[in-house]
Amino acid sequence: MTTTTTTVAPAGGDAIGAAVQACHRAGSCAGIAHAVLERDDGMLTVNDAAIYLSEDTTWSEVERRAPLAATGMVLDLGCGAGRHARALMRRGLDVRGVDNSPGMVAVAHSLGVDVELADLGALPADLGTFDTILLLGGNLGLLGSLAAGRDILSSLTRLARSGARIIGTGINPYRLTHAAHQRYGEGNVAAGRMFGQYRMRARFEDVSSDWFDLLLLSPQELGGLAEGTGWTLCDLDEDDTFPMYTATLRLG
Amino acid sequence: MTTTTTTVAPAGGDAIGAAVQACHRAGSCAGIAHAVLERDDGMLTVNDAAIYLSEDTTWSEVERRAPLAATGMVLDLGCGAGRHARALMRRGLDVRGVDNSPGMVAVAHSLGVDVELADLGALPADLGTFDTILLLGGNLGLLGSLAAGRDILSSLTRLARSGARIIGTGINPYRLTHAAHQRYGEGNVAAGRMFGQYRMRARFEDVSSDWFDLLLLSPQELGGLAEGTGWTLCDLDEDDTFPMYTATLRLG
Repeated sequence: MTTTTTTVAPAGGDAIGAAVQACHRAGSCAGIAHAVLERDDGMLTVNDAAIYLSEDTTWSEVERRAPLAATGMVLDLGCGAGRHARALMRRGLDVRGVDNSPGMVAVAHSLGVDVELADLGALPADLGTFDTILLLGGNLGLLGSLAAGRDILSSLTRLARSGARIIGTGINPYRLTHAAHQRYGEGNVAAGRMFGQYRMRARFEDVSSDWFDLLLLSPQELGGLAEGTGWTLCDLDEDDTFPMYTATLRLG
Repeated sequence: MTTTTTTVAPAGGDAIGAAVQACHRAGSCAGIAHAVLERDDGMLTVNDAAIYLSEDTTWSEVERRAPLAATGMVLDLGCGAGRHARALMRRGLDVRGVDNSPGMVAVAHSLGVDVELADLGALPADLGTFDTILLLGGNLGLLGSLAAGRDILSSLTRLARSGARIIGTGINPYRLTHAAHQRYGEGNVAAGRMFGQYRMRARFEDVSSDWFDLLLLSPQELGGLAEGTGWTLCDLDEDDTFPMYTATLRLG
């Protein structure tokens, strides 16, 4: 069974959830469990699962500032283990979380977050309506592709109260310096995809997720994607030293 | 170019060396660069590259005790960035290191270690002779397989002075509790291989090594493998809480 030299990890597993559960069981310390994000060109990124459980004192400036503008009823999309939701709850806000990882949802629930298991592209009809919709922790990437991203933004208008805003953080792929990212982006463009549409899967120990699309966008590209969805890019907070930014979109 | 969902990372790269060089450039801090060890069943193990640069104050008890018995002229096989070699040099011993990773050798050299780039199976003829030969950091695994391990041990008799010893640390695969390790071991046995012969490659960012065999042995299996090679297992230091042990083999 082990004479071949190809990877046979079964797909469909909750790799990030398993990593975060392992980290949580071990006291949420760093250095215990690492989720591996694998792009389909073989590029690996390793995330210590402890970052999904970290307190806001350890976040970057952009990440710390991003949720500060949240007001009213808050929906935290891709809430993970609830690190942003809990920070907002400590400030007295009402927060509902949504995540598609059963492991993440279990941990978030155990930490007191009101959380629902769902895909961003198939949100339950009875979630309620919100003043603030969050896509933090780089979750603008969950928009996936130009077409999927437009569908998601359009569907979010149905959950939006008057004056609602989306606050999201994203990675600007044009600011990533590794040559492999540049090559990958150029290959995407040649194939008619957006520069930062990354085909990814998550892996942890012997668990592998299905492949999915992660969409890295420049702020300008996000503004263009939002056109016609009911949302307009209205504010931007960029980091000078790290290619992450916070974008705010307003309804209308 | 990115429509398939299979990994196309080029093989043959010095993945662990690249990870350690990235960590070393960043001040040898933890949490910066992670080497991913991938088994051919898809099982991943993530190692913070900082462990290859760590000082002996952070090592486990077994790892700390292992080199204490080194005497005379010392050969450190698979010396990596030289963490064990440097600890012994601080104690006044003469140490030569050998590693097959150009990146590791570059870092070890920059840290003052007398180090040679070579494979364990093809050691240079002019290395010299030694009183102590080290296979630390789990490097008994570099024996690779029953046949390769016997060849390596036999070849080491030519580098051995009278009374020489090999001091090596290894992982006992029968003490690993994850079900995937048990399944893999049973598959190995069914195919006529040793239980702990793991087919592995190292990955870092977009760099992947060739596949290689890592041999995890029980102390009893090591004793059997050594028979007829000129070496005899003579001492064992086992950890109660972690499946790593130190084995000492004497010439004759």
